Amino acid sequence: MGDQGNIVTKPQDALANLLSKEMAQVNELISQRMASQYAPRIPEVTAHLINAGGKRLRPLLTLASASICGYTGGFHIHLAATVEFIHTATLLHDDVVDESAQRRGRPTANLLWDNKSSILVGDYLFSRAFQLMVDTGSLDVLAILSNASATIAEGEVLQLSASRDLSTNEEIYLQVVRGKTAALFSAATEVGGVIANAPKAVQTALFNYGDALGIAFQIVDDLLDVSGDPDLMGKNIGDDFRERKLTLPFIKAVAKSNADERAFWKRTIEKGDQQEGDLARALELLKTHHAIEDTRQDALQWSRRAQDALTPLPDHPMKALLATLATYVVERIT
Amino acid sequence: MGDQGNIVTKPQDALANLLSKEMAQVNELISQRMASQYAPRIPEVTAHLINAGGKRLRPLLTLASASICGYTGGFHIHLAATVEFIHTATLLHDDVVDESAQRRGRPTANLLWDNKSSILVGDYLFSRAFQLMVDTGSLDVLAILSNASATIAEGEVLQLSASRDLSTNEEIYLQVVRGKTAALFSAATEVGGVIANAPKAVQTALFNYGDALGIAFQIVDDLLDVSGDPDLMGKNIGDDFRERKLTLPFIKAVAKSNADERAFWKRTIEKGDQQEGDLARALELLKTHHAIEDTRQDALQWSRRAQDALTPLPDHPMKALLATLATYVVERIT
Repeated sequence: MGDQGNIVTKPQDALANLLSKEMAQVNELISQRMASQYAPRIPEVTAHLINAGGKRLRPLLTLASASICGYTGGFHIHLAATVEFIHTATLLHDDVVDESAQRRGRPTANLLWDNKSSILVGDYLFSRAFQLMVDTGSLDVLAILSNASATIAEGEVLQLSASRDLSTNEEIYLQVVRGKTAALFSAATEVGGVIANAPKAVQTALFNYGDALGIAFQIVDDLLDVSGDPDLMGKNIGDDFRERKLTLPFIKAVAKSNADERAFWKRTIEKGDQQEGDLARALELLKTHHAIEDTRQDALQWSRRAQDALTPLPDHPMKALLATLATYVVERIT
Repeated sequence: MGDQGNIVTKPQDALANLLSKEMAQVNELISQRMASQYAPRIPEVTAHLINAGGKRLRPLLTLASASICGYTGGFHIHLAATVEFIHTATLLHDDVVDESAQRRGRPTANLLWDNKSSILVGDYLFSRAFQLMVDTGSLDVLAILSNASATIAEGEVLQLSASRDLSTNEEIYLQVVRGKTAALFSAATEVGGVIANAPKAVQTALFNYGDALGIAFQIVDDLLDVSGDPDLMGKNIGDDFRERKLTLPFIKAVAKSNADERAFWKRTIEKGDQQEGDLARALELLKTHHAIEDTRQDALQWSRRAQDALTPLPDHPMKALLATLATYVVERIT
């Protein structure tokens, strides 16, 4: 891979190559456990989402963390499947909550079947995730992943009320982002260390890495929505503004707004009364208050925190790949 | 209580009296754990449902089972709260799935807030339930309740496809009923024995009791919908027929139907083309094929199975109350 000059392999693809045998076992376990003795709709709905070509980034993080910590048992496979099940369950519920029609370029399950199936199959996968954890026999793992699940749901509820509320500050934003993304990333990495019985400092390091990586990932996503190149991104600029989502750049601009600007945000975000030219003005305000540049600096800082967090980990080829991954997630904004 | 002649205390009220101190602790723990540091909507939605005057039958079953087995620790409180959280989470999701507007005589959470809040607060409570179980440190408890949760979700998905499908047989009906009711009853009783470290035979007996009690309970519910006294029940006859739900009496009648009757069921249940006089004809067919009487006998048999299951349990005042409870659930049809 590395000796072909400027053909650069993405770090997650390099991880997937190194972990291909384990990932095959994870996929096999997922297939087994998404089955249902009585309700064939469960594997149908699950397969639609789980075979849609997602990156499997979260299970890769678990497998890599366990490998770096020298784990030689078999339960990292269970944990990787657990993490993917929890992720899939939250996607099923998110698509109902957001009334989404597309995910990963395909119609969502709530559109193909119905909201009922998405809600109940999500519940089933969530239960199956806990059964997989019980199989590992580790109460520490169960504590970490049940805490993460609570943070995820709490973050999503918080987003319902916070996303259109101008009083939302950066602390609340961070909690929403932990729910949306970082809580499952940090649990995915931490449990890899826990199952390997790594020293406490290494477990904490893995948690901090996943947390910072997830936050960087989400901030970049929010940033690209207001500053990305539409041709490169394959999606429009300003979706978050149109959907009245107070992401980090907006929160920073609102915090610095004068009375006139505040009235503008109140009308467009809180009341949802948007007119032609409003998106242009919103983007202009982000620039005026350096909100885009400040958000960019935040993303870079979280990326550096992720890299720094890795220091206590033992040397390992995958440790370097995790560091590269933390650089990669902010590459589109550097 | 007992010496006031014909004032009969319901067995669940007698249990609640004997366990009032523990139930106060359960309610306190529920209040603590339904809190959310960031999202005030979570306790709002939860309190709406959890303080609506439900019978708290499931946590009472857990507390009673632990007491009968001589448990002297404190984790039965956690388990009772767990069971109530899982129950509340499923109610929140059920009301979205069934598009219900009322529960326990009050507007549902999905109506007062929205479907999004009901889905996500349900997910939060489900996670909190697992955190409570982790606190007990018992992997056996976690296995039992994650299995029960999977059975609940599977039964609900099954019901989506089975309830209007004339090929639904009694085996499938039983699985749906286990999901709707019996799985959480049997888990509630079993974990009471497990936390008390009761002999395996007693744990199994508690499971069998809860399973049979839950099934009897649900069959009686289905039966009253086609044969109850509307004045006593406070609800109409025939709701299940109108909602095209193939409950046990209908399954029995369909199984014995001739070609003409089958066409009737196909039109009214599968296609949902119901006309005036159809409910009367449906009820007539149930009588013709002794479907109501046969269903009644099934309910009585499950009630007896519940009572018989108690045999291996040690003598205890609450053991007698559990037996009375099994009689009480079928009282309205005897």
